[in-house]
Amino acid sequence: MDKCHGKSVGILDKFREECGLFGIVSSEEDAAHLTFLGLHSLQHRGQESTGIAVEREGSINMHKDMGLVTEVFTDEVLDELRGGKALGHVRYSTTGSSLIVNAQPLVIRSYRGSMALAHNGNLVNSHELRRKLEAEGSIFHSSLDTEVVAHLLARSGHDNLEEALLASIKHIKGAYSILILANGRLYGLRDPHGFRPLILGQVHGDYALASESCAFHLAGGHAVREIEPGEMVVLEEGSIRSEQFAQPEKKRFCIFEYIYFARPDSTFGSRNVHLIRRKMGRQLAREFPVEGDIVIPVPDSGISAAQGYADELSLPFEFGLIKNKYVGRTFILPRQSLRDLKVKLKLSPVRELIQGKRVILIDDSIVRGTTSRLIVNMVRESGAREVHLGVSSPPVINSCYYGLDTTKRQELIASQRDVEGVAQHIGADSLSYLSLKGLHQVFENEDSYCDACFSGSYPVIGMVGKDILEEGY
Amino acid sequence: MDKCHGKSVGILDKFREECGLFGIVSSEEDAAHLTFLGLHSLQHRGQESTGIAVEREGSINMHKDMGLVTEVFTDEVLDELRGGKALGHVRYSTTGSSLIVNAQPLVIRSYRGSMALAHNGNLVNSHELRRKLEAEGSIFHSSLDTEVVAHLLARSGHDNLEEALLASIKHIKGAYSILILANGRLYGLRDPHGFRPLILGQVHGDYALASESCAFHLAGGHAVREIEPGEMVVLEEGSIRSEQFAQPEKKRFCIFEYIYFARPDSTFGSRNVHLIRRKMGRQLAREFPVEGDIVIPVPDSGISAAQGYADELSLPFEFGLIKNKYVGRTFILPRQSLRDLKVKLKLSPVRELIQGKRVILIDDSIVRGTTSRLIVNMVRESGAREVHLGVSSPPVINSCYYGLDTTKRQELIASQRDVEGVAQHIGADSLSYLSLKGLHQVFENEDSYCDACFSGSYPVIGMVGKDILEEGY
Amino acid sequence: MDKCHGKSVGILDKFREECGLFGIVSSEEDAAHLTFLGLHSLQHRGQESTGIAVEREGSINMHKDMGLVTEVFTDEVLDELRGGKALGHVRYSTTGSSLIVNAQPLVIRSYRGSMALAHNGNLVNSHELRRKLEAEGSIFHSSLDTEVVAHLLARSGHDNLEEALLASIKHIKGAYSILILANGRLYGLRDPHGFRPLILGQVHGDYALASESCAFHLAGGHAVREIEPGEMVVLEEGSIRSEQFAQPEKKRFCIFEYIYFARPDSTFGSRNVHLIRRKMGRQLAREFPVEGDIVIPVPDSGISAAQGYADELSLPFEFGLIKNKYVGRTFILPRQSLRDLKVKLKLSPVRELIQGKRVILIDDSIVRGTTSRLIVNMVRESGAREVHLGVSSPPVINSCYYGLDTTKRQELIASQRDVEGVAQHIGADSLSYLSLKGLHQVFENEDSYCDACFSGSYPVIGMVGKDILEEGY
Amino acid sequence: MDKCHGKSVGILDKFREECGLFGIVSSEEDAAHLTFLGLHSLQHRGQESTGIAVEREGSINMHKDMGLVTEVFTDEVLDELRGGKALGHVRYSTTGSSLIVNAQPLVIRSYRGSMALAHNGNLVNSHELRRKLEAEGSIFHSSLDTEVVAHLLARSGHDNLEEALLASIKHIKGAYSILILANGRLYGLRDPHGFRPLILGQVHGDYALASESCAFHLAGGHAVREIEPGEMVVLEEGSIRSEQFAQPEKKRFCIFEYIYFARPDSTFGSRNVHLIRRKMGRQLAREFPVEGDIVIPVPDSGISAAQGYADELSLPFEFGLIKNKYVGRTFILPRQSLRDLKVKLKLSPVRELIQGKRVILIDDSIVRGTTSRLIVNMVRESGAREVHLGVSSPPVINSCYYGLDTTKRQELIASQRDVEGVAQHIGADSLSYLSLKGLHQVFENEDSYCDACFSGSYPVIGMVGKDILEEGY
Repeated sequence: MDKCHGKSVGILDKFREECGLFGIVSSEEDAAHLTFLGLHSLQHRGQESTGIAVEREGSINMHKDMGLVTEVFTDEVLDELRGGKALGHVRYSTTGSSLIVNAQPLVIRSYRGSMALAHNGNLVNSHELRRKLEAEGSIFHSSLDTEVVAHLLARSGHDNLEEALLASIKHIKGAYSILILANGRLYGLRDPHGFRPLILGQVHGDYALASESCAFHLAGGHAVREIEPGEMVVLEEGSIRSEQFAQPEKKRFCIFEYIYFARPDSTFGSRNVHLIRRKMGRQLAREFPVEGDIVIPVPDSGISAAQGYADELSLPFEFGLIKNKYVGRTFILPRQSLRDLKVKLKLSPVRELIQGKRVILIDDSIVRGTTSRLIVNMVRESGAREVHLGVSSPPVINSCYYGLDTTKRQELIASQRDVEGVAQHIGADSLSYLSLKGLHQVFENEDSYCDACFSGSYPVIGMVGKDILEEGY
Repeated sequence: MDKCHGKSVGILDKFREECGLFGIVSSEEDAAHLTFLGLHSLQHRGQESTGIAVEREGSINMHKDMGLVTEVFTDEVLDELRGGKALGHVRYSTTGSSLIVNAQPLVIRSYRGSMALAHNGNLVNSHELRRKLEAEGSIFHSSLDTEVVAHLLARSGHDNLEEALLASIKHIKGAYSILILANGRLYGLRDPHGFRPLILGQVHGDYALASESCAFHLAGGHAVREIEPGEMVVLEEGSIRSEQFAQPEKKRFCIFEYIYFARPDSTFGSRNVHLIRRKMGRQLAREFPVEGDIVIPVPDSGISAAQGYADELSLPFEFGLIKNKYVGRTFILPRQSLRDLKVKLKLSPVRELIQGKRVILIDDSIVRGTTSRLIVNMVRESGAREVHLGVSSPPVINSCYYGLDTTKRQELIASQRDVEGVAQHIGADSLSYLSLKGLHQVFENEDSYCDACFSGSYPVIGMVGKDILEEGY
Repeated sequence: MDKCHGKSVGILDKFREECGLFGIVSSEEDAAHLTFLGLHSLQHRGQESTGIAVEREGSINMHKDMGLVTEVFTDEVLDELRGGKALGHVRYSTTGSSLIVNAQPLVIRSYRGSMALAHNGNLVNSHELRRKLEAEGSIFHSSLDTEVVAHLLARSGHDNLEEALLASIKHIKGAYSILILANGRLYGLRDPHGFRPLILGQVHGDYALASESCAFHLAGGHAVREIEPGEMVVLEEGSIRSEQFAQPEKKRFCIFEYIYFARPDSTFGSRNVHLIRRKMGRQLAREFPVEGDIVIPVPDSGISAAQGYADELSLPFEFGLIKNKYVGRTFILPRQSLRDLKVKLKLSPVRELIQGKRVILIDDSIVRGTTSRLIVNMVRESGAREVHLGVSSPPVINSCYYGLDTTKRQELIASQRDVEGVAQHIGADSLSYLSLKGLHQVFENEDSYCDACFSGSYPVIGMVGKDILEEGY
Repeated sequence: MDKCHGKSVGILDKFREECGLFGIVSSEEDAAHLTFLGLHSLQHRGQESTGIAVEREGSINMHKDMGLVTEVFTDEVLDELRGGKALGHVRYSTTGSSLIVNAQPLVIRSYRGSMALAHNGNLVNSHELRRKLEAEGSIFHSSLDTEVVAHLLARSGHDNLEEALLASIKHIKGAYSILILANGRLYGLRDPHGFRPLILGQVHGDYALASESCAFHLAGGHAVREIEPGEMVVLEEGSIRSEQFAQPEKKRFCIFEYIYFARPDSTFGSRNVHLIRRKMGRQLAREFPVEGDIVIPVPDSGISAAQGYADELSLPFEFGLIKNKYVGRTFILPRQSLRDLKVKLKLSPVRELIQGKRVILIDDSIVRGTTSRLIVNMVRESGAREVHLGVSSPPVINSCYYGLDTTKRQELIASQRDVEGVAQHIGADSLSYLSLKGLHQVFENEDSYCDACFSGSYPVIGMVGKDILEEGY
């Protein structure tokens, strides 16, 4: 019996983003509908749970559940969420039967009234803060960092919410983009390093906040600018206000947003994701020009880089691997021989393109190497004479503490083997990674990105107690 | 268009219990399975949400959802809830889209570690406590009284859980039966008046706690004794310990448990529910012997009393109203003439028994009178010569603050009209209620019950801020 | 591991009815809604699949699915089934993955246009007819007798539907009540022995047909008269026509409709089901007066007879077994000791009533004896001093070929053991069955019933090839 | 209110295939599992219903339902379908509440025993055949052509199934690829023109039949050869036999399989779908070389042709339109301004690639032109200086009678307007279609394809009575 988890097939051995955020202050009562459209565009950032909280006449109404945005938010549910201010969230979550308690947004009531919070990122000192808050008598319902922030807000002595917010935020360290809905306002904060994205946009003249610029388009809007590191924006009906809540540190925007997470039609700052990926492919080709007949991307994330690679070397670019649109559920199959089904359910080789060719596969990254091995094998079985693998980013050798669901260090294949060893493991005739230097060149050596997963230079360090914390939930 | 809410039909204008509790410390790993059986037997106490928390090797695993016990707890879910200690809960809940946050048990983490709590009752000072806790920096996720208790526990200075529990419990006033699972122990507490039930039982030699004695039977166990007012029991594997945490007040057990809520096969103290109901019927017959040809219960809750009534007057007892087993969902029907469908979906008259007769209908209580009116009318249309209604409890004229979901005072028909007026409203040829004195006689004037809904003499008074509290959730 | 099938618990070892029918020609477009109400009242006659076909402007629209009436027919579905003529069906079905092909009604198209058919009963010559039709080139999609009738209709040479119907019906033998919707008319036919019920009723002035009189009440209507054996009625808008399509044979109405199937508020001819059951109980008491302290019915089907039994002997009638309202799904439990859970999930003993008593249990019938054994044991474990079982019908010793889903002869306990043996098997101190003669007396020796399952005298005999037939489906 | 049908968005104004077939005779009991994998790979040919029939020890077991292959066939269902011979089907179906009766396969019983049939195509004389069969007394349950074939088989006088098959098949005209499972054999037949595809393959040494070669790969197999026009193959365990049941006509394989339906990794004869599409793009570029800056495909179906087009003109090929992976359900949105959401939910423009460019969009075909208009507009709004549309097939001006769900002739935009008019309607700066001559050149003037939808030259003509037929269902 070979158990093939159709769902995990979708992940294909990549890092996982943990969250997508959207919030809006609308001049009409349709904030939840617009948030629905925004979250729908951010669905690639998290597919396991989603929620929307909406404020109307001072009270907050919320709905969240396990599932995709279009599954959780039926027309019926959206109609009940009438109001002009809303924030929403999509997320991955870990297994276990109490999953729903970790869905966001979090709606709480304190002496200050009701508020809704949503968060993308990871606090490096959340473990210490929790222990401290618990010692002072706080109780926790979830393992969410958001709940830590809520407690800090409730315990700050300040009467004014904004003062409380500014006082609380000083205690937290790490990566965070946070949306808060309270007192008829929508607050958006981004940590002083700007690890996780947060963009200001406009939708039909109303201001909105989102994790990616693509989130505004579906609702008929557009991006305005990024929220700066250490900046807080306050959206009210008809107005927007900005404040620098913390001295901005050196900007450390997660470079993996460009490499894998973000949608190719998203733009951070002046850099479009698709175009950056193509440059990575070009750079890889310059560094490691493999002699081959044909360049084939591992879809979808390798497409842009493969184009760049093929262009640089004037090699034919071909869709030699077709992605199956209807990947479904987990299922069990009776024959041992169906082993590599896992990747075949997801990708189909076009034999006519591959047969007899020296194939250069381009992928955006390798995490554990398991899928790469199956793909290389599949291409070889389809008749390729040689199979080379080019990876348009450097070897991943370190875990992330800033919001990605990375595997443990020892599971990262490049942390255990050298390039030659990895090549051997996955069975490729050659394997080339983009160099860290090359990656920097793509970004014109503008040193404003976090590349700790490649370089090991962590901008912020704290006791990361996630494993310990999860014991009780 | 006549909208007929099939579900609310189930309630037939009665008070609603808010909770059922079950907990067990099993010598095997099957505590969740046994709790499942217990909750299944307590399903009549709440049908909208249910949950089970289980402890194993120091960590707590929990599952809760909207729905019936057999719907929420599939074999698959139960299998994941392995462990020797468990507690569970069934409840009604109010409408709104964030219902699930009000499901129980509540699992929280404080400096003391993880714990699970479940509660039946209503605290009369929860509003004040919340305001006080919020002022001290607590945040609330729900409108549950359970959450207030959790905060008190977390803020008590005591290192020892039991000391903390004893200290915290001093702050709360009102009706409560509480189960807590923490530190490998199951704690059961009952308020000093003993408003809500809590029974100790044994299942295959292991101790268990439940709201009603019937909960032990399905799992092959039996009731041992009631938990006393102000008593706390501590169940560990292989042992049980009792402590009087508070001076017991005059016992004030909710008399409506006998009248309507509890299952007829349950017994509180020495009194079996079915037998007490029959005595009420007898007493009613003694007080108001109506001249009639036939006694018909309004099923199911009126059956026992109707038997007693018929016996006392030596009148034929007949099932003239048949309950439909397959009452389903809400639906909309096209014709105005289908008005009284609401009650017809639930009850069918047996014309052959009714035709030409002077019918004495016996019901256990009347709340708003709407359903009684439809039933009386239906019986008359089925050919009854006269329709008399006997109610085996006194007129409900006051709201309950101790855990029943009663309507507002002005909606209680008996608080707005005298008996004659009610009779006229429901269209009965005569209407008789059991007298308060008669009710007391049934209980042999043993003054240990709360009958505030009839008498207005509330044992405990507090600011009941439920309406205010709910603003933010 | 003890696998407890919650669903089959519902059946409690009884014969199973196979169908319920309802059809109406309404003066408004709401025929499907009224049929929905009718089927809802007939839900006890079949809970596994249901369907409604409606005619509008000459074309037939249909919806059927597995599930309860209220589950299958949502408001949305009913709204799509607009039209003035409708017929519907509820049924049990056997296991297998292609169940839906055996749901009714059957909608087919022949040279005569479209028609919908629904059927209750069992043809004794369907096997021969199928073989004959197949030999002539007919193909079958299901194992339904209805499909045989459809083929006969399509192959009759007659141009006129009614002529075709009269010609076809001559070929079929056995038990059938059939509704056909075609050419804007609703036809209702009952076999010459009148085995299965079929009643004419009126709903808001419009004519309707149903299996039981109770089906008319919910929609605000009433029964008019039984369709006679061998009679065909033709309902059109505003008119009704009757024809005797066959010489009526001696009437042989299924006596089990009175004993177990029909709802107590239904009436066939002049006999109300509840009252007849009570008479059976009285007669049993006269024949076998057991010395006991208390009479307890096995709910629900034993209630009426138990009342009669207790009345006759002036013994106290008590609800010593409470039926659980929330019987749910199949589930698996970990402990062997939970063996008798099957019946406990369904019934709870009231120990206070039973303890120390000589209990006389009254049930309507015993089929395999398995459940009776569990119930007797449960009552004994609840403290009964003696447990006697009285059955208000004779021993079932023969299978039914006229529409009941009876077990094979060798599984009928009374066909394998004498009364003493059965008593021993189920563990009762005594066991008494109503005599066949006694049963006849209850019906005043009016020899118009089929009691073949007791007496073995089958009114119609044919080759019953159901088992053979089912091979291919 | 703007109602946006998320599901129909998926179709993006294309012709719809009606079916996919898979059948296998396995040497193990896992035929249903292998069929499941085959159907999963053919999911693009039909997403509304699916079914599998399996033979084991002479009896046929079947499961079919509305939904995707992975939804309908859970592990549980597959496990019940044990057996060595199976056939399966995926299909689109039209709206209506009785959809399930039109799902395939069809399992019937005739004098010859049980058999299962599945069909891809459209009979042009099915209306006449039905009328004739009905006149002879046949009844129809569905509007499936498959049912016509089943009747012909049942009515053929031949005792031997194969003889009957050969006799029956002579009566049917039009497009058909048919699988039949009976007597332990799997029969595959393809009409004399070979309109619809049918491929013989091998899976782990066992023979299989499928609509496309890609269907064999997932299960670890490969294509062997096409079934020839007029050929019947008979698969038994361990053997295969071929027979020419009809004089092959001039081959007329549906050219739209290459243009749009088939998966790019499928190959018919010696022609891979992806490569043929690319040649079409090249040919279009040769015929109509537009002056532009960038070539953008309308994904997914336009990708291959766009590559060819860009290659031919040495223009940059860019993914300027990103396909959303998470297109979901129908939903209603409150603002009128969200009009063009329909296409935006499906496709997102990459503004950075488009801005200021002269864009050449390449699509495979235009049916009604509605979507093309929205896409052209979206690209223009994203900043394109010019928007040209190239279509890699000729104008569709005729309906299809051979198995495609084409719109009515008057809805085909190219049948109502000349190219200039279409260009104006969709708002493109220029519009070019591949010429019919150019299309023929791509296939090297090998005159073996049906291009009636472009040319109007229908190879087979019959009375197409589908509209009339459907009246009754």
